[in-house]
Amino acid sequence: ARNNPFGAAAPRKVGITETALRDAHQSIMATRLRTEDMLPVAEALDEVGYHSLEVWGGATFDACMRFLDEDPWERLRQLRRRIRKTKLQMLLRGQNLVGYRHYADDVVREFVRRAVGNGIDIVRIFDALNDLRNAEVAADQVKKEGAHLQMGISYTTSPVHTLDLFARQAQDMVGMGADSICIKDMAGLLSPMDAAALVSAIKARVDVPVQVHSHYTSGLAAMSYLAGIQAGADVVDCAISPFAMGTSQPATETLVAALQRGPYDTGISLEKLLPVSEHFTRLREKYQGQILGMAGVDINILLYQVPGGMYSNLQSQLKEQGALGRLREVLEEVPRVRREMGYPPLVTPTSQIVGTQATMNVLAGERWKVVPKEVRQVFLGYYGRTPAPVDPQVQKKVLGDEKPIVCRPGELLEPELEAARAEVAPWILQPEDVLSQVLFPAVAKDFLPRKFARTTKQDVGLQTLEGEAAYPV
Amino acid sequence: ARNNPFGAAAPRKVGITETALRDAHQSIMATRLRTEDMLPVAEALDEVGYHSLEVWGGATFDACMRFLDEDPWERLRQLRRRIRKTKLQMLLRGQNLVGYRHYADDVVREFVRRAVGNGIDIVRIFDALNDLRNAEVAADQVKKEGAHLQMGISYTTSPVHTLDLFARQAQDMVGMGADSICIKDMAGLLSPMDAAALVSAIKARVDVPVQVHSHYTSGLAAMSYLAGIQAGADVVDCAISPFAMGTSQPATETLVAALQRGPYDTGISLEKLLPVSEHFTRLREKYQGQILGMAGVDINILLYQVPGGMYSNLQSQLKEQGALGRLREVLEEVPRVRREMGYPPLVTPTSQIVGTQATMNVLAGERWKVVPKEVRQVFLGYYGRTPAPVDPQVQKKVLGDEKPIVCRPGELLEPELEAARAEVAPWILQPEDVLSQVLFPAVAKDFLPRKFARTTKQDVGLQTLEGEAAYPV
Ligand SMILES: [Co+2]
Ligand SMILES: [Co+2]
Repeated sequence: ARNNPFGAAAPRKVGITETALRDAHQSIMATRLRTEDMLPVAEALDEVGYHSLEVWGGATFDACMRFLDEDPWERLRQLRRRIRKTKLQMLLRGQNLVGYRHYADDVVREFVRRAVGNGIDIVRIFDALNDLRNAEVAADQVKKEGAHLQMGISYTTSPVHTLDLFARQAQDMVGMGADSICIKDMAGLLSPMDAAALVSAIKARVDVPVQVHSHYTSGLAAMSYLAGIQAGADVVDCAISPFAMGTSQPATETLVAALQRGPYDTGISLEKLLPVSEHFTRLREKYQGQILGMAGVDINILLYQVPGGMYSNLQSQLKEQGALGRLREVLEEVPRVRREMGYPPLVTPTSQIVGTQATMNVLAGERWKVVPKEVRQVFLGYYGRTPAPVDPQVQKKVLGDEKPIVCRPGELLEPELEAARAEVAPWILQPEDVLSQVLFPAVAKDFLPRKFARTTKQDVGLQTLEGEAAYPV
Repeated sequence: ARNNPFGAAAPRKVGITETALRDAHQSIMATRLRTEDMLPVAEALDEVGYHSLEVWGGATFDACMRFLDEDPWERLRQLRRRIRKTKLQMLLRGQNLVGYRHYADDVVREFVRRAVGNGIDIVRIFDALNDLRNAEVAADQVKKEGAHLQMGISYTTSPVHTLDLFARQAQDMVGMGADSICIKDMAGLLSPMDAAALVSAIKARVDVPVQVHSHYTSGLAAMSYLAGIQAGADVVDCAISPFAMGTSQPATETLVAALQRGPYDTGISLEKLLPVSEHFTRLREKYQGQILGMAGVDINILLYQVPGGMYSNLQSQLKEQGALGRLREVLEEVPRVRREMGYPPLVTPTSQIVGTQATMNVLAGERWKVVPKEVRQVFLGYYGRTPAPVDPQVQKKVLGDEKPIVCRPGELLEPELEAARAEVAPWILQPEDVLSQVLFPAVAKDFLPRKFARTTKQDVGLQTLEGEAAYPV
């Protein structure tokens, strides 16, 4: 009984976060873009009128040093120099920062300080288990730096992941100072109906903007954005069309066109997107051989509610063992393992952990007979608090009499900065180099001396470098 | 102020028409699937619980004979034999049937009679100009045969194509006996907001089911389906995922998942789609080299509101003339030409006609100086009535003193069946062969004798065949 058949929420300008330089780039081409590929389009991006540009964090930090021999901090500064009007955004994995383990609190604080100091306006923080304690130090530091704190809810489906749980999480996040909330659907599982319900539930509880982030892997993402917007979402994450869809985000142009001249218009003109689209089309051609990810839709995600990457991992694990025929059994074991492990969202790293355990439960012929170290660590509480309690009998089988920790995992870590600073002292060109060392010591031990030599035009001395680190002067 | 943030329309079961065997197959692989590729999946398709299966008509009839040496009528019967529960649907271009010119009324009636007689349950009829007179004979015959008459509105945007015009058209269609209405968005221009508004407007005026048909070319289609459903649409056209998206329809699995367990559930289970998806994945691999169409999103459709095919045609026409640099001028000329020609929807054949005239207007240096025969015929009324009156000054320039016809174009055509029957008399194996001859005489003159020889194991005699028609016995 409404006049307008399009949308329940009040008219308002919807914002778009462009992910081309971070998530899209990570999802469809494994973060192999170089800074020189990005800079020529920076001004055009700045002219569009995006809500923000996601340009940093996630896997790009590691990839910069590891594969491209580039300083991620310098990339950020270069972008900031050219993008003067639009907010720059980054993704931070809570206490994991942009790495793959928990770092000590001093590292977390220093990293946030430097990220904001080098130009980041909006920091999106999330934790794979939605244990907010893993986000708390980083969040506190973002507030101290005066940046915009966006906190992300790792979206998943399970009996305990009710609308109410998510809405309470959003409330807790706002209590921690969150300036906005992101519904982060890494796996592309969020259906339009769930998006509408979830946005409504969160909006009913908190007063901050809500952003929706999804991936196109199951084909749902654009519909889920639309339904989310109709229900009140304020910002959605999109990627310019040559870098969109498949494992990446919905296309920016499509969302702009979909909302044009309506109650949720983005205010962005397609004309201004044209040079951006043309630039990324050229990059797509340049890196043709490195474009990854499928273009279509993966029905298995919909059928088994597992992320596309997890499905293909399980397939190849089983193939290696000559047990591909047991794929279906493993897929049916996944929900059981997930329940017994307290319903972790299936996102890196928990998707790998749950998938491996499910495989072992099937192949070993006895459930929970073989248990990898990472699974033990989940039961020990080192990843944080699981969404529901773990199954006590399985815990007994996995841990024996060992007791799990109950504190915030980061609390147990001694400060790490000083030792790292000493280690890389000869090559330090900027305070940020110490962070690069702490985060990825194996990569940084080659990268930092190489950068030092390149920058100072000094022969760093082959004798001081080990193995592959030798710098060809 | 609603409880449910998802959708304005009342809860109901939404139907899906699977286009894999017709539109999807036509859009992404130029209708090169053989009947033998289709039959193994027929039973699985029948088990899904689709609203209908679009399996015939459009370009498939021509392609069957021309490229595959297959009898399109036999394909239909073979499918019907295996698909016993699900309704079979076809696309009919009004007085053009499945060909590219107007046919005489006797041909139209006989074609419809035979299509229904061989197993078609639902006939979707449309006209490129939305001149209902071009659909009237076919529609009348569909009713006489007792089949379901679905009438399609060619969707387009222009100042005269208002919600009210479309809704009145729907009303006229119901007046002609339409059992349902299809919003037919050939170009992928329909935005979700327009879909919601249009479905609402039509539903407010007529009481029959409304179906939405779109293409994914601009990335809007899935969102437009969703918004259309939220506003009351009853059925949407989808393609199984390996044949979906890009120039084809949204993926069936995605729409099923999007609506599952909600107020607009399709009642289809993903499990039943799995064997269908697997079959078409194999076909995609088999015909890898023939997969056409882009996978992503074409921003030009959104920017210039022209279909993707038209855009690339203009590009290649201009390239041939060494005038690619004038593409933008031509694209800006298209809306002017369209206005002067009475705002025809840009769909085959009018997209080609308008595009060619726009190109000539730019390249000739004087507008309407060079005018191809087809453009003259539009002004002469041979394609039917244009949505708005043509520009009288341009008409004067194009036609001089010649007067356009005002009657239904089909009225001017003498019966064609008897002459055709005489022509192919020696090769007639079934009454339908006469229709194949009338529709595509150049193709049928080789195809029918070849089929006759193959079926009867008779040497048809090389002396009776001309040129390439020689049948290697
Ligand atoms: Co993401
Ligand atoms: Co179509």
